Amino acid sequence: MFNGIHEECGVFGIFENAAANVAQKAYLALYALQHRGQESCGIAVNDDGVFRHRRGDGLVPDVFTAQSLAALGEGNAAIGHVRYSTSGGSGRNNIQPLVIRHVKGNLALAHNGNLTNALQLRRSFELQGAIFHGTSDTEAIAYSIVKHRISCASTQEAVSRAMDELCGAYSCVLMTATKLIVFRDPYGFRPLCIGKTKSGAYVAASESCALDAVGARFIRDIRPGEILTISSGGLSSDTTHCGKTAGGLCVFEYIYFARPDSVIEGASVHKARVRAGEFLAEESPVDADIVIGVPDSGLDAALGYSRKSGIPYGVGFIKNKYIGRSFIQPSQDMREDAVRIKLNVIRENISGRRVVMIDDSIVRGTTCARIIELLREAGAREVHVRISAPPFKYPCYFGTDVEGEGELIACKYKSCKQIARAVGADSLSYLSVSAAHRLAQNVSLDFCDGCFTGNYPAPAPQRCEKDKYETKLSEARANGKF
Amino acid sequence: MFNGIHEECGVFGIFENAAANVAQKAYLALYALQHRGQESCGIAVNDDGVFRHRRGDGLVPDVFTAQSLAALGEGNAAIGHVRYSTSGGSGRNNIQPLVIRHVKGNLALAHNGNLTNALQLRRSFELQGAIFHGTSDTEAIAYSIVKHRISCASTQEAVSRAMDELCGAYSCVLMTATKLIVFRDPYGFRPLCIGKTKSGAYVAASESCALDAVGARFIRDIRPGEILTISSGGLSSDTTHCGKTAGGLCVFEYIYFARPDSVIEGASVHKARVRAGEFLAEESPVDADIVIGVPDSGLDAALGYSRKSGIPYGVGFIKNKYIGRSFIQPSQDMREDAVRIKLNVIRENISGRRVVMIDDSIVRGTTCARIIELLREAGAREVHVRISAPPFKYPCYFGTDVEGEGELIACKYKSCKQIARAVGADSLSYLSVSAAHRLAQNVSLDFCDGCFTGNYPAPAPQRCEKDKYETKLSEARANGKF
Amino acid sequence: MFNGIHEECGVFGIFENAAANVAQKAYLALYALQHRGQESCGIAVNDDGVFRHRRGDGLVPDVFTAQSLAALGEGNAAIGHVRYSTSGGSGRNNIQPLVIRHVKGNLALAHNGNLTNALQLRRSFELQGAIFHGTSDTEAIAYSIVKHRISCASTQEAVSRAMDELCGAYSCVLMTATKLIVFRDPYGFRPLCIGKTKSGAYVAASESCALDAVGARFIRDIRPGEILTISSGGLSSDTTHCGKTAGGLCVFEYIYFARPDSVIEGASVHKARVRAGEFLAEESPVDADIVIGVPDSGLDAALGYSRKSGIPYGVGFIKNKYIGRSFIQPSQDMREDAVRIKLNVIRENISGRRVVMIDDSIVRGTTCARIIELLREAGAREVHVRISAPPFKYPCYFGTDVEGEGELIACKYKSCKQIARAVGADSLSYLSVSAAHRLAQNVSLDFCDGCFTGNYPAPAPQRCEKDKYETKLSEARANGKF
Amino acid sequence: MFNGIHEECGVFGIFENAAANVAQKAYLALYALQHRGQESCGIAVNDDGVFRHRRGDGLVPDVFTAQSLAALGEGNAAIGHVRYSTSGGSGRNNIQPLVIRHVKGNLALAHNGNLTNALQLRRSFELQGAIFHGTSDTEAIAYSIVKHRISCASTQEAVSRAMDELCGAYSCVLMTATKLIVFRDPYGFRPLCIGKTKSGAYVAASESCALDAVGARFIRDIRPGEILTISSGGLSSDTTHCGKTAGGLCVFEYIYFARPDSVIEGASVHKARVRAGEFLAEESPVDADIVIGVPDSGLDAALGYSRKSGIPYGVGFIKNKYIGRSFIQPSQDMREDAVRIKLNVIRENISGRRVVMIDDSIVRGTTCARIIELLREAGAREVHVRISAPPFKYPCYFGTDVEGEGELIACKYKSCKQIARAVGADSLSYLSVSAAHRLAQNVSLDFCDGCFTGNYPAPAPQRCEKDKYETKLSEARANGKF
Repeated sequence: MFNGIHEECGVFGIFENAAANVAQKAYLALYALQHRGQESCGIAVNDDGVFRHRRGDGLVPDVFTAQSLAALGEGNAAIGHVRYSTSGGSGRNNIQPLVIRHVKGNLALAHNGNLTNALQLRRSFELQGAIFHGTSDTEAIAYSIVKHRISCASTQEAVSRAMDELCGAYSCVLMTATKLIVFRDPYGFRPLCIGKTKSGAYVAASESCALDAVGARFIRDIRPGEILTISSGGLSSDTTHCGKTAGGLCVFEYIYFARPDSVIEGASVHKARVRAGEFLAEESPVDADIVIGVPDSGLDAALGYSRKSGIPYGVGFIKNKYIGRSFIQPSQDMREDAVRIKLNVIRENISGRRVVMIDDSIVRGTTCARIIELLREAGAREVHVRISAPPFKYPCYFGTDVEGEGELIACKYKSCKQIARAVGADSLSYLSVSAAHRLAQNVSLDFCDGCFTGNYPAPAPQRCEKDKYETKLSEARANGKF
Repeated sequence: MFNGIHEECGVFGIFENAAANVAQKAYLALYALQHRGQESCGIAVNDDGVFRHRRGDGLVPDVFTAQSLAALGEGNAAIGHVRYSTSGGSGRNNIQPLVIRHVKGNLALAHNGNLTNALQLRRSFELQGAIFHGTSDTEAIAYSIVKHRISCASTQEAVSRAMDELCGAYSCVLMTATKLIVFRDPYGFRPLCIGKTKSGAYVAASESCALDAVGARFIRDIRPGEILTISSGGLSSDTTHCGKTAGGLCVFEYIYFARPDSVIEGASVHKARVRAGEFLAEESPVDADIVIGVPDSGLDAALGYSRKSGIPYGVGFIKNKYIGRSFIQPSQDMREDAVRIKLNVIRENISGRRVVMIDDSIVRGTTCARIIELLREAGAREVHVRISAPPFKYPCYFGTDVEGEGELIACKYKSCKQIARAVGADSLSYLSVSAAHRLAQNVSLDFCDGCFTGNYPAPAPQRCEKDKYETKLSEARANGKF
Repeated sequence: MFNGIHEECGVFGIFENAAANVAQKAYLALYALQHRGQESCGIAVNDDGVFRHRRGDGLVPDVFTAQSLAALGEGNAAIGHVRYSTSGGSGRNNIQPLVIRHVKGNLALAHNGNLTNALQLRRSFELQGAIFHGTSDTEAIAYSIVKHRISCASTQEAVSRAMDELCGAYSCVLMTATKLIVFRDPYGFRPLCIGKTKSGAYVAASESCALDAVGARFIRDIRPGEILTISSGGLSSDTTHCGKTAGGLCVFEYIYFARPDSVIEGASVHKARVRAGEFLAEESPVDADIVIGVPDSGLDAALGYSRKSGIPYGVGFIKNKYIGRSFIQPSQDMREDAVRIKLNVIRENISGRRVVMIDDSIVRGTTCARIIELLREAGAREVHVRISAPPFKYPCYFGTDVEGEGELIACKYKSCKQIARAVGADSLSYLSVSAAHRLAQNVSLDFCDGCFTGNYPAPAPQRCEKDKYETKLSEARANGKF
Repeated sequence: MFNGIHEECGVFGIFENAAANVAQKAYLALYALQHRGQESCGIAVNDDGVFRHRRGDGLVPDVFTAQSLAALGEGNAAIGHVRYSTSGGSGRNNIQPLVIRHVKGNLALAHNGNLTNALQLRRSFELQGAIFHGTSDTEAIAYSIVKHRISCASTQEAVSRAMDELCGAYSCVLMTATKLIVFRDPYGFRPLCIGKTKSGAYVAASESCALDAVGARFIRDIRPGEILTISSGGLSSDTTHCGKTAGGLCVFEYIYFARPDSVIEGASVHKARVRAGEFLAEESPVDADIVIGVPDSGLDAALGYSRKSGIPYGVGFIKNKYIGRSFIQPSQDMREDAVRIKLNVIRENISGRRVVMIDDSIVRGTTCARIIELLREAGAREVHVRISAPPFKYPCYFGTDVEGEGELIACKYKSCKQIARAVGADSLSYLSVSAAHRLAQNVSLDFCDGCFTGNYPAPAPQRCEKDKYETKLSEARANGKF
């Protein structure tokens, strides 16, 4: 709600055996994946080899009306994408799915993640005459596949060759005239799973909640490095790239990005968050009268903290559900009310109480400080902040916009005591990194905890020299190009 | 979220001692009151006797942009209104606040409630040459006040005389060139309270959450029958009409309409809902493994049920927070997914469990049935529905659109057993009416429980003969004219 | 195109003998009358006594979409209105048609003109308890009719009584449950005519071009002072108020306001404008090579000047037809291009020539000066400006916004020579007032030439003391309230 | 207004020597070129090597608001484009200017015309790994230039090499980090000219009216085959491709597409249209009382016919200037009024007269027939239609959408007599092809008259086999891909 960290995308694909209302299914799925990207979205439909698509800035309901959805028509396959991206004039061309024409016909590609060698790839393609319409790394993936496609017998083979030269994070859904190809980088940074509807259609999605949204049964997660091809002949899997590296599943997916009702690699996101609260209660106990969560993302962990600590769970805040992007920030003299209008305290539960307040992250600390102030105004005797994640201090190169810069409160101060003082809390603790690794039960993959530790499972990108013809670096980064 | 019953309005007023940004304060307050009316809204500003206003169809952010808010300018007083109303061409003129010119200057009026003698009043005014622009009863209140104003020494005296002839429910905020007059019918059907900001401005609002939103301290509720006048000379109260009748505070405000963070007549709405859950646990216990609430309105009572019963509280559903009014209903073959896309089950918490599911109401039962089906699909062994309100079976004439008609599931079936069968639950119970009366602790007013019992504290309206020049009866009713 | 003087309204009414698509006919008619008011518009439909209406700010296509037009449904009668009015928040309530409910049922009223005793009337009604929603004089007309309706046998009789107390300009269309009543003030300031469609429906409109637009045959003009009632029984005319005063038809309707394809009181507007050019050629001849008109309003008179003088007619300018209200004014350094982007010179016709440039008015002179500059840049040897109207120097109280203030170039300078120098012309002449009276041939009415001479056929309004509770005088004036 | 033939594009470019408000100048220029394309438009700004752009569907004022224009910022160069194109989801990617990144930096390209070997070129690039985002031939031009750029010393040299392989019509403006390159195919199908502003900036545009709009002085037309490079070092021209072929300037630019105030190859478009009327009077004289033009495009020729024939010129129709794209077509029973609402007859000028009606084209004849019917209703004794162009019967492959199909009235009937009968005229004549060649005086280029004669100066495209993965042929054609 108030945070500045974002997942960068969500992808979806569906493959029916006959013409069907695939655009509407993609629409429903994108609604379920909206939390993974609110800046733009798009759907491409495959109508027997002819591709129709619509993409636009804004939320799913901004871009897709009954009319525009109908204009996409029926098809036997479709892919969709939601994107978090910078605003501004230059962003338009990066909206996905990428829909292109190459020598073998039409291709549509939706990508979640971030290549670490995108600039190097772009340069090498440009030297062969390539032109790029946008600044995203998705075009680089497309060129790589298309280049190999010329000499390969099939698109899935071309994807496999392309994966030899792609570095970094990519969970992709690729649509050709006759197939849906779902592939995931060998580290498995971003989630990706498949399911099947009652009518027999295969669907692929970043999170299982999107399978639920279209009434599909979850089958399994795509393996890191796997290339799964769905065609009228059924499924076929190429696992050549599997198992070559240790895993790198982003632990923040469980803590923060994914929807609680999703199940990733067999572990419930909701349950992982409840467990984060339980671990917090073990690691950072405190004597208090009530445990509250900051809506919506702190509520699950608050429940866990309450269960483990035995301190009663209660409702601390009401979130105004009508505040949206068109809310006009109050003027200077009312600036402080920006948080108050979004969150209001249930005074009866707070007044005279010692409060444990659970949130899933602190970015700059200003919002946290204001929320604590509201609790004090409502009569809280003590406020103990517990964060259901470790502090992030290092940049993420694999598909989120965690920057690891000086503005982060965890970079600014050395100790929890100092941070507690800065935000006005009586005490403050984070979840330990080792606990973070235990949140998701029975997951066989290793996790990436680079944003907490600075240790990355895959090489961080080599910094290229600043390109004088490009947009400013900050913009470029935000555009997913690094 | 899925219900068809609505509160009809929310009102707000502010009186500063000097020119100030009253429009922005009204804007923030209307945001806090948005749950009381989503169809239209408006703000009128008093700039030293000159009134400016803006009203429109839609939510607060639809009607007020930074530009339109700025165009309202500064003023020393303002009133605002949110309205639930029918859609359609004829509705426009009923948007409030009503802003009029009469012999003594400008008047603006915002009204929450429903007159039961509106038609009779309109007719009598028409016989004297009155013209009505809309179909709402608010114009009748205005005419009554204006008529008496001619012979009265002050507007508050005219309000008092008007109250002699107004029947039914009205919680009003009236703005004149120099005063803000806040008045409430002698039964006190709808809530109304006042507060004071740090800068010394008085504010009045339907609910205390709107006081919080503008940083005002709660002072007290307006008494049923009270006329409170705020001017540069301070407050003055006319209590002539107080105490003449038994109270009639709508008990549904606590159960359903009001925001949980509001305090009405000294009782916390949140707490009343938790108590509803506790009473339910006492009245309708059941052996189960988990208590869940239907978001958002069933969550508080679920917590109460869990506390009292000792059955663990858990999260049953994730609500998709992006689904808004522009969501396109799925086509015929996906109709059943309309609920699924809005609510998704946390399977881990439900699978193999005996579930107590708490909601605050059932209207037709179709949504309830579909939700239960989702729980079954997720593996629930048993589903026990507990409704944190008594069944409503009778029409409300005092400011809500409860109709008491045959479509209501509680009118259609005689027993809870039958209803349980109809929605597919293993058991189903409602809160008792007597428990409903005990939800709000320490409230000195009597409650209206007419929609549950058919016993109304004030006379129901005499049915007038159908007026052949009017819109159809159903529309008329929806327009608050009965 | 560039001028600051405006007609204030256009009205339309249709009466069918059975349910028909009257809303669409009104829509087409308002399109034809759009030149009489671009700020707001509205349509009210009478569906067997039930009235539906839609009104809004903006042009006809802004307010009426296929959907909103369909929502008005079928009916046996409809009225419509286009309005020129001030912008801003308070203007909304003045949008017409006024649709009200009174003791005898529904009424809808559309008014073109301006009452000179509106304030006095409003005050007297307010003393009897009336409330006004807007600031326009249309509500005063409605109150007057409604007041008399109580004691009169019919609405047309009430209209007749109301006309006893209404002063000033009013061409009105009034719709009741069963009738359409068309009436015009005894001076006949504003035009009003009736026609009949092939299907037998009667239509009334401000100008005959609206009759053409709905495929109706022109029957005749409404007489000054006439009350024409259209019902299922046919037409009936009340001429009690006819002939009591000299006529006062606005001569500017022919020169400027009306559409060239309209015929008013038997005289073609186009022809009157051609004659204006002919008279100009007689009164202010000049030796020149080409006669050009400033598009679009100067073209007809240019043709007349050419015919009478024998100097060839040519095209001087191309007007960019895409420049609309959303055109963004160029920045400071390009300010001068504001005119250039709208009008471009046909250099081939101007270069090296002595040019007679005809326009229908000069307001402040800045646009005229810039246009002359463009002609000089294109190589014009001489530029002789001829204005096809007398200079307006006095305020109009009868339905236009001519103000007669110091900003008018004709008030600022004493002689045509001075004005010519100010705008950079080699010579400049206006049409004489006596010629203006001869523009429209065979019109039996006398004309009002008050804005040229200060002599008004009817009393100018008594200035009321400034009302401290009202909006500023300039706004009030602009709102048609004086 | 009513016609179904369209020019396909307009281009603009500006090169300043320092940072300036180039986006606003492009905006004004696109407004002036709006008649060349109303479906989409775009502007790209070069801010010292960094490119920002905005493109969108709709008219210039739809796409560019004050805010979006400001977001483009300042720059030292900019290019702009207006496009006529098909509607629909797939069209988006064809909006120009094309803005791409290649190995040497950023490129932006705006193109007016149509390649005849686009499919062949696309295929050859695809075989080398190219991907195409859209279906327009503009991407093919870009690939060709980029491919050659790798081995060439400069972009202008790459353009020259590209021109060796491009066939068909192309008038282009290309922006690199440091240059503006303006080039035109060797036939000179579409116009293209340059000018210079007072501040020393060079501008290029499809028509001279756009130079006027930005206050630039016309310098000269770009020669067919010329590559003109504008950089901080001034102008340099590469004329290698000049003079290799006979000219092919589209004669329809003079008759129909271009704005009358433009001057193309030294000849005034307005004057050419007047001359068309004069030639018509010589070739097809008739005894009549008045000559009228169908607004707006028939007015110039009507003036010419009148001058040469001596028959008085008059105004026959008033065009409703408010009818725009949002006009709702009347329902079935009012279908015939579609024309009437747009055009109304000045009865006074027509009644009892023998009329010569001039228009610039007839497509299907239905509109023409309806207009003649309106003249008859207004009392015209005779109606003689004169078309100021020869009949077009053959497809155009060089940048317009003239199709030469059976729906064209000139393909359907063999003689003018038959066509006259079909539209209800007393007589009907077209301009002769030989006269068409003489319209534009002193033009040294040869003209293309392929749409009249079927003789094309350049080879028509070879028909490729239908591509099964592409959109339907009709769509492909409409997209400019053939």
